[in-house]
Amino acid sequence: MKTRAAVAFEAKKPLEIVEVDLEGPKAFEVLVEIKATGICHTDAYTLDGLDSEGIFPSILGHEGAGVVVEVGPGVTSVEVGDHVIPLYTPECRQCKSCLSRKTNLCTAIRGTQGKGLMPDGTSRFSYKGQAIAHYMGCSTFSNYTVLPEIALAKIRKDAPFDKACYVGCGVTTGVGAVVNTAKVEPGANCVVFGLGGIGLNVIQGLKMVGADMIVGVDINNDKEEWGRKFGMTHFVNPKDVSDVVAHLVEMTGGGADYTFDCTGNTTVMRQALEACHRGWGESIVIGVAEAGKEIATRPFQLVTGRVWRGSAFGGARGRTDTPRIVDWYMDGKIEIDPMITHTMPLEDINKAFDLMHAGESIRSVVVF
Amino acid sequence: MKTRAAVAFEAKKPLEIVEVDLEGPKAFEVLVEIKATGICHTDAYTLDGLDSEGIFPSILGHEGAGVVVEVGPGVTSVEVGDHVIPLYTPECRQCKSCLSRKTNLCTAIRGTQGKGLMPDGTSRFSYKGQAIAHYMGCSTFSNYTVLPEIALAKIRKDAPFDKACYVGCGVTTGVGAVVNTAKVEPGANCVVFGLGGIGLNVIQGLKMVGADMIVGVDINNDKEEWGRKFGMTHFVNPKDVSDVVAHLVEMTGGGADYTFDCTGNTTVMRQALEACHRGWGESIVIGVAEAGKEIATRPFQLVTGRVWRGSAFGGARGRTDTPRIVDWYMDGKIEIDPMITHTMPLEDINKAFDLMHAGESIRSVVVF
Repeated sequence: MKTRAAVAFEAKKPLEIVEVDLEGPKAFEVLVEIKATGICHTDAYTLDGLDSEGIFPSILGHEGAGVVVEVGPGVTSVEVGDHVIPLYTPECRQCKSCLSRKTNLCTAIRGTQGKGLMPDGTSRFSYKGQAIAHYMGCSTFSNYTVLPEIALAKIRKDAPFDKACYVGCGVTTGVGAVVNTAKVEPGANCVVFGLGGIGLNVIQGLKMVGADMIVGVDINNDKEEWGRKFGMTHFVNPKDVSDVVAHLVEMTGGGADYTFDCTGNTTVMRQALEACHRGWGESIVIGVAEAGKEIATRPFQLVTGRVWRGSAFGGARGRTDTPRIVDWYMDGKIEIDPMITHTMPLEDINKAFDLMHAGESIRSVVVF
Repeated sequence: MKTRAAVAFEAKKPLEIVEVDLEGPKAFEVLVEIKATGICHTDAYTLDGLDSEGIFPSILGHEGAGVVVEVGPGVTSVEVGDHVIPLYTPECRQCKSCLSRKTNLCTAIRGTQGKGLMPDGTSRFSYKGQAIAHYMGCSTFSNYTVLPEIALAKIRKDAPFDKACYVGCGVTTGVGAVVNTAKVEPGANCVVFGLGGIGLNVIQGLKMVGADMIVGVDINNDKEEWGRKFGMTHFVNPKDVSDVVAHLVEMTGGGADYTFDCTGNTTVMRQALEACHRGWGESIVIGVAEAGKEIATRPFQLVTGRVWRGSAFGGARGRTDTPRIVDWYMDGKIEIDPMITHTMPLEDINKAFDLMHAGESIRSVVVF
């Protein structure tokens, strides 16, 4: 079949909207009509050529929502008409990782996904006879896309696509880091570094679980209003204090119970660890650092009880936990609508990248 | 009263055995006759002048066992004749740290202890009228010493002093890191870096809790025999392999569930983290690094599920958990006797430091 898609033909070039060829689903695969897709920093990271493993040409996009239109042989967990969220972190429920019960990082199709291919080692997309790579196993910048069954979360049908798509990455990454990775308990004092699309979702996750202090840290004062909208109780601009770690330790009465880095800046990651309370404070790295950058600290920070951990896709099991987060949104326990600052047709998708780079959007969503 | 003690008058000088003056216990303090004391790397670290906060003159020693001979006003938890282990990590059960239920690092007397003083801000030791500092709140290189009640673990009377003393630091640090900090589960694959007095205790802790693979790593092949004696199942000399991390990941089928650094070397600490399994492996820093040294890694290591934490005094609450470890020894669940390679009178204490520096002892114990 033919489908309209925004194709990344080359790094550092705008996406081009063209009609590409799409092969139908093979065994254990599903054809999905994407109804809406968010544009995330990770897409920009790849498009800007910063990801050394980026593949071109490819169809980017990994934060979508849509409808199942066809299932290949052997598919049992979804059927035509189901509403679904594509998962860049699948959940096979059979691999060592899934069975460990300790991680969401399913490894069933990791090898081929990283190469831009379906599990059988081929691509379903092509343009003028040339194969086009899949991206993060999703390629939601295409109106139709094919995914393995294990990479689809079935969600309720009354959830609007243009909001539910954000659960495919940003919302789950932020809220999940609180709920699944840190397992923050009511009454905790917490600090969130970086009040972008992920940081705001960490904040609303903290509010949902009953944290006491929710301190937001950002070098842009305009973010204070955004943070307070979702439950932030205190704001700190590091430029206004001489030593941000000492300031936060003082504010939180000895250090935070949990801190979250949502900046990707390795200097900030260190501050986040060192702002933790002696004895038990845990710091969660969420942001993706530039290639080659390293985090560092004195080991004394760990020996005296601080814990350094990270979170990918909010520690959420794709098929099990993602639908629950959609429920939380529909039940009003978390918000999404105010974070979707821009909505646009596919033709305008390059504007979404411009808005992101200019810091003018929290999240832009393309509606097909 | 007068008591015999090995005094550290200056950094980098041998200890001198002299008679010092000791004031009796004040309120909530206890006079203890030390029957035996281990000599630990931390004592050497201070004596060698490497600890920037080291105080001289002082009476070192923090790994002892003895008998209560007098209690000050208000003391209720121990009585004359009780057998006790002095605790450099006290347990007041009242401070924010104790009440957090998340850490063993009681902060009740941290300020004065770090200054070599009793909680009232004075020292009980003096020599020719000059005050001598306490050390780590213990000063077990003195035949008699005074401690706060909250820094004494009451142990069973049938435990031999010359073995029980080792529970005051080394045994608890190693076994406790497994039991309290990492909470290793049966069947886990584990790697222990550094097979000295701490590493061997980590190994026997792992054996006790039913770990599957217990891989020991040391640059000294002579340590293999020691490791196997306490439950090590595999030995790796990093000098024999091109990439120790890759080798360990391969050996453990994808990485270890838990790794333990018992070297204090920050390069090894990084290897220990990176030898952990993607998704859930946890690395525990136990060793004390040189002043100013830092640990580093790519944040990707954490984001993909590895956890970096530390352990002090094995995460053990001094008064609650230490007596239990003495019980485990008396019940034959862990061993101590083979680790005490040298026993000597106080007069020979400087030999214990020489043996340690020469790598000829696992543990030397002074018996008074």
